[in-house]
Amino acid sequence: MKKWEIAVIPGDGIGKEVVPAALDVLRAVADVHGGMTFSFTEFPWSCDYYVEHGKMMPDDGLSILRNFDAIFLGAVGNPALVPDHISLWGLLLKIRREFEQVINIRPAKYFRGLSSPLAEPHEFDFIVVRENSEGEYSEVGGRIHRGEDEIAIQNAVFTRKGTERAMRYAFELAQKRKRHVTSATKSNGIFHTMPFWDEVFADVKRDYPDVATASYHIDALAAFFVTRPHMFDVVVASNLFGDILTDLGGAIMGSIGIAPAANINVNGKYPSMFEPVHGSAPDIYGKGIANPIGQIWTAKLMLDHFGEEELGALLLNVVEEVTADGVKTPDIGGTATTKEVAAEICRRLREHA
Amino acid sequence: MKKWEIAVIPGDGIGKEVVPAALDVLRAVADVHGGMTFSFTEFPWSCDYYVEHGKMMPDDGLSILRNFDAIFLGAVGNPALVPDHISLWGLLLKIRREFEQVINIRPAKYFRGLSSPLAEPHEFDFIVVRENSEGEYSEVGGRIHRGEDEIAIQNAVFTRKGTERAMRYAFELAQKRKRHVTSATKSNGIFHTMPFWDEVFADVKRDYPDVATASYHIDALAAFFVTRPHMFDVVVASNLFGDILTDLGGAIMGSIGIAPAANINVNGKYPSMFEPVHGSAPDIYGKGIANPIGQIWTAKLMLDHFGEEELGALLLNVVEEVTADGVKTPDIGGTATTKEVAAEICRRLREHA
Ligand SMILES: CC(C)[C@H](C(=O)O)[C@@H](O)C(=O)O
Ligand SMILES: CC(C)[C@H](C(=O)O)[C@@H](O)C(=O)O
Repeated sequence: MKKWEIAVIPGDGIGKEVVPAALDVLRAVADVHGGMTFSFTEFPWSCDYYVEHGKMMPDDGLSILRNFDAIFLGAVGNPALVPDHISLWGLLLKIRREFEQVINIRPAKYFRGLSSPLAEPHEFDFIVVRENSEGEYSEVGGRIHRGEDEIAIQNAVFTRKGTERAMRYAFELAQKRKRHVTSATKSNGIFHTMPFWDEVFADVKRDYPDVATASYHIDALAAFFVTRPHMFDVVVASNLFGDILTDLGGAIMGSIGIAPAANINVNGKYPSMFEPVHGSAPDIYGKGIANPIGQIWTAKLMLDHFGEEELGALLLNVVEEVTADGVKTPDIGGTATTKEVAAEICRRLREHA
Repeated sequence: MKKWEIAVIPGDGIGKEVVPAALDVLRAVADVHGGMTFSFTEFPWSCDYYVEHGKMMPDDGLSILRNFDAIFLGAVGNPALVPDHISLWGLLLKIRREFEQVINIRPAKYFRGLSSPLAEPHEFDFIVVRENSEGEYSEVGGRIHRGEDEIAIQNAVFTRKGTERAMRYAFELAQKRKRHVTSATKSNGIFHTMPFWDEVFADVKRDYPDVATASYHIDALAAFFVTRPHMFDVVVASNLFGDILTDLGGAIMGSIGIAPAANINVNGKYPSMFEPVHGSAPDIYGKGIANPIGQIWTAKLMLDHFGEEELGALLLNVVEEVTADGVKTPDIGGTATTKEVAAEICRRLREHA
């Protein structure tokens, strides 16, 4: 009996609602499998924890997490309690960095049972490969002067190693899919790093002659996500551009509440982390109506990561079925609660046991 | 008889098609007015010019432009001839910077006769005020090492002066509209400059107690442009975020080919520059089918800038009427050519003479 040790961090806001729902679903998945169990160890690290302890996680937090097979995270951030950049860089972004989760994979697809805000029902199905360790997200920079003369400087740092790694990951993923990679650039406006990004892309693509490519500036690309989403297979993007594109991916699916993500440690030294694209949504927290699909689809990415692709596919299929049958939360036009959606998914999963 | 001296730079690609079309329309506008003429002086500065002269404009280009009442520009960029960052920083971005065109105004609205890619016909009407002089667009930065160790660093520079100026512009604009300003931030991920942006926004908004505000991270905001565009009035954004949001604004209107922009020199020292949001689209150049509406709507912003708001409103109204009556280019579902659209707009304008 294979036992997966999972560190669970519900985090803030609706994270505390959708994570328990997704854990129930994972338990049902284990039942279907028969030869696998999950052991969930919960950590209350969050903005509430910060208020009590003056930090987002204990000093030995990372060494505790290190021994798990994976980290399953809800959402982090509650600006009413802790400034966002403190909470995020103290927990979510810290884990991404310290555990060398250098790739963030974020699929988006036409989803049965959802009404997309797009008029034309595009049958899109793409994955954004987001560089997750450097780029525009960096603690390098600072401020000088005060008052009306104040200046803030932010450094974006792109290494060839990090850039190339994300691009190779994208090309290898595309080889298993429709063999097309789109690069998100902005080399017309961003003077140093984006022409560099283009150069690396030109170099890397030479190694994958079987994969077709395209390259668009982020402004045009964001517009294409709305007007022609079906034209994409794999999109490779910097940390910031990947962030923006994947919320758009959620939007065109019909709700950013359903978009999943996986932060992958590619060298196998540390656990990978699985967290949905959406945030903690403090405004709807506590009502029991948060959409659990983002967290549950994220659980599917964790199954894939464990090599359980067949189970993962089954799970996503059941989620789509349940959605298509109208058992869904208010954000996507239903009347069900978080718990009801999860319960229905569990029930249908168990039919496959 | 008031005579406006306009420097005209068609630039590259479809700029060379849509600018002449818009000039015809401006001539018709002058006829309607009766007491106003335009004098157009054309400059061939472009990537073709670069190929011949090794630069995008002559060394005294700026001092030539300086004496005009306004600059009317098409589009710049032809990566097949000149790398984008060279052509853009050598012409478009150079003029924006050197002429202290610190504010970029970009309206987007529900447009009669266009089919939006959005399923629900939102009656949106907003203006993005884009900081146009600093931020993520800077020549500060560089590279170190070569080969696999290469690193590229890009500095984003935000001054309190520049940030505050853009925000005050947005608040004052909102006071003439629906009294609502949305700030585009990313202070959860961008460590130094975006928390700074938020602080300045909090300070500035105190001076405009009659204006309501909201603040969203750029990822969520981009998604809202797709799911709830009607919720915006004035949006204030950094250089990069404004760039991305305004292409999205074009996309939800039905085509980025119609989105207009004005680069405003607020201190009156230099001419302002008027250019549409779209690029040079080398792929469709030469076919005579480029959509001239972006350039013509941009001409309307120039009229507004000259204090001819009534004429500007008439022009936009005629453009919407012509579009609603189906005289439109293929990108928005018509069969008309660039010239036919412009001719029809001129014809209907002259009925008002
Ligand atoms: C061409 C490019 C440098 C420019 C920009 O990003 O400012 C364009 O996209 C725009 O929006 O005016
Ligand atoms: C919360 C924030 C720092 C984070 C990011 O920008 O990476 C989130 O938006 C995401 O997409 O995972």
